[in-house]
Formats: sequence, structure tokens, C-alpha cells
Amino acid sequence: MSVIDTLISGLQVLPGVGPKSAQRMALHLLLREREAGEALAHAMHVAMRDVRQCNLCRNLTEQDICGLCKDAKRDAGLLCVIESPADVLAIEQAGGYRGFYFVLNGRLSPLDGVGPGQLGIDQLLQRIDQLSPAELILATNPTVEGEATAHYIAQRVGDKVANISRIAHGVPLGGEIEYTDGGTLTHALQGRRTIV
Amino acid sequence: MSVIDTLISGLQVLPGVGPKSAQRMALHLLLREREAGEALAHAMHVAMRDVRQCNLCRNLTEQDICGLCKDAKRDAGLLCVIESPADVLAIEQAGGYRGFYFVLNGRLSPLDGVGPGQLGIDQLLQRIDQLSPAELILATNPTVEGEATAHYIAQRVGDKVANISRIAHGVPLGGEIEYTDGGTLTHALQGRRTIV
Repeated sequence: MSVIDTLISGLQVLPGVGPKSAQRMALHLLLREREAGEALAHAMHVAMRDVRQCNLCRNLTEQDICGLCKDAKRDAGLLCVIESPADVLAIEQAGGYRGFYFVLNGRLSPLDGVGPGQLGIDQLLQRIDQLSPAELILATNPTVEGEATAHYIAQRVGDKVANISRIAHGVPLGGEIEYTDGGTLTHALQGRRTIV
Repeated sequence: MSVIDTLISGLQVLPGVGPKSAQRMALHLLLREREAGEALAHAMHVAMRDVRQCNLCRNLTEQDICGLCKDAKRDAGLLCVIESPADVLAIEQAGGYRGFYFVLNGRLSPLDGVGPGQLGIDQLLQRIDQLSPAELILATNPTVEGEATAHYIAQRVGDKVANISRIAHGVPLGGEIEYTDGGTLTHALQGRRTIV
């Protein structure tokens, strides 16, 4: 296999990239972005070699303890449990949250062999002992497995944390009630708040 | 900038990849495809370092002379001139052509400073002297610049080649006459062929 064919087939490991777009990407790099391509190859090599889980929050980082856990300006009274590093990025980009995180890297799913051990629940309990947060926010996804995981964690944490909360489910901003599914509407009505 | 952020911003050099898909790609590699990511980084590094133009046809290759030019089974009577390495891949994947290629790596475009020198026209003339093909196929794109390039090459080649041809323009297979643009239809009618 030629060097170019190897690159084209390698690019297809990326999500959403098939043979045609892999070919387009390879030629783009080779014809127009040689230096950026070299930099990307290096960045990818370093990331694959060095990135591992943060010892405190299990988020992805190249250090022992990630930048978020090290940040002394964050609110140690809040600890937010999410399913994946992508959720950390989404919440950080939203910008409203200033507490700490704990990343499960999965959700309870007995059929797939994912139990409390894989999700680092013991590590989460240690982290709670360490931080003694006033509130634990369970921000797992609103799926069957996500809800089950949230309930399981709430039970395990018990009275270690005074306030255990679950993120709100409801009509998304910019969404239309007419086109919102029944489950979401039920949540939106049950979770209604007095405004005056 | 963390190693992960460097990877996410590096991935955005790929065509059609914005911040969100770059993030998805980076996390996919880090969480699920560590080994394939390492292999991709290596393939990309080797390709950026080694791939250059074939000495005979100007196609991309890591060797002095590319696999297509080396292939003794190809028909030396046919030489096809195309604009880019992507066109070679497209024609090879179509499968019907067994002659040689010459890649211009561009098209005449005086406003962008692309003249005959950049397109390797002298190299093309040398290649024609070498192969003495019975037919030269001009398969530049059916755009204003592509047509101008084809005409320019036809003039320069002059009587070195007995038969200089241009690829057919017409209704694409699976296309519908009703929705075909006027220019294409005019070409399709002018280029009609007797079938009985």
C-alpha cells in the first residue's frame, strides 16, 4: 500500500469520515497544508501517547491532575458528575458553571458489563470526602441508563452530601412546545417554577 | 494550550471540519481508537515528509516515479492530461482507462499567477516525446479555465501527437434531461453519436 493510500485509509478511523472525504482530506493536506499536516501528525502522536485520566476527576488530561481540578478559583462547594469528557467541554463552553467535575466515562449498563467499578464510583466517594461539597449535581444524560446511574450514585453517596440535585429536563431554548416530545413536556410541566 | 486543545485545533485544518467535529474526532480517538490514532499520526507524518511529485507525470507519490508510470501493462499509446491528483483517483476508480496520465496540478489562471511554467507544460512536452502516444486526451475540467488550459496545451503540442481529443460533455448517467442546464444540453446535442 502506498504512503498516500495508508493515509487515506487511516483517516477513515475518524468519526463521519468515509473513503471519499478521507481522500479529499489527504489530498488537501498533501497539496495545500503540508506544514499544518505535519503539525497535526505531531499533535496527534503526542495526544495518543500522553493523554490519560486525571487522578482526581477522571477527565482526559496529559498531567497527573487536570487544569480544572488544579484551578484554585473554582467553587469547591459544587461537584458535578457527568458521563463523558465531551460533557465537560459542553458545560465549560456554556460558561455558567464554576464548580468541579467528576467524569464517569460511561454509564451503568449491566448488559454491556459496565458496573460501578468501571465508572470509578469509589474514586467519586473519595473525591467527595476530599472536597466535602455542599451540593452534588448529577448531570448524567436523560436516558434510561443515565437516570439509573444518577439514582445509583445518589444512593451510594447517601448523607455524605447535604444536597444532591439532578439537572432540569424541559423544553430547550429556541425549541417549540408544539414539536416537543411528550416525555420532555411532562418533565417541563412537573418542573415548573413560580416566576412572581 | 493543553495537548487535547492542540489536537482539536490541529484537526480543524482538515476540509469540512469545524470546532465541534474536531472535538468529536479528538475525543473519539482518545477514548476509543488510541492505537488507530497513533497509526494515523504516523501515516500522516510519513506522508507529509515523503510524498512529492512523480518525475514523469507530476502525480503525488513517495517514490521518484509513481506506480502508474512504472506499470508496464498500461497502454503507452494513450496519455491523459488532468488538473489534479484527485482526477487520477476518480478515473482509476471508474476503471475504464488503461493509459498514462500527466497531472498539471492546476489550470491556467493568469489572475492568480498560474502560467504554463507552474503547470509543467515543458515536462508534458518531454513526456510526449518519450512516449510518442497515438492519442493525447485533454481531461481538464469543463470550466472557463479548464477549457482555456486544454486549448493552450492543444496548441503547444501541435503536430507532435496525431490525435488530440477532449473528454465528452453531456448529460451525466442517472441525470434527467429536464433538469440539465442549457450549456450541458447544447454540448450533449452537439456531441450526439449515430447508434445504428
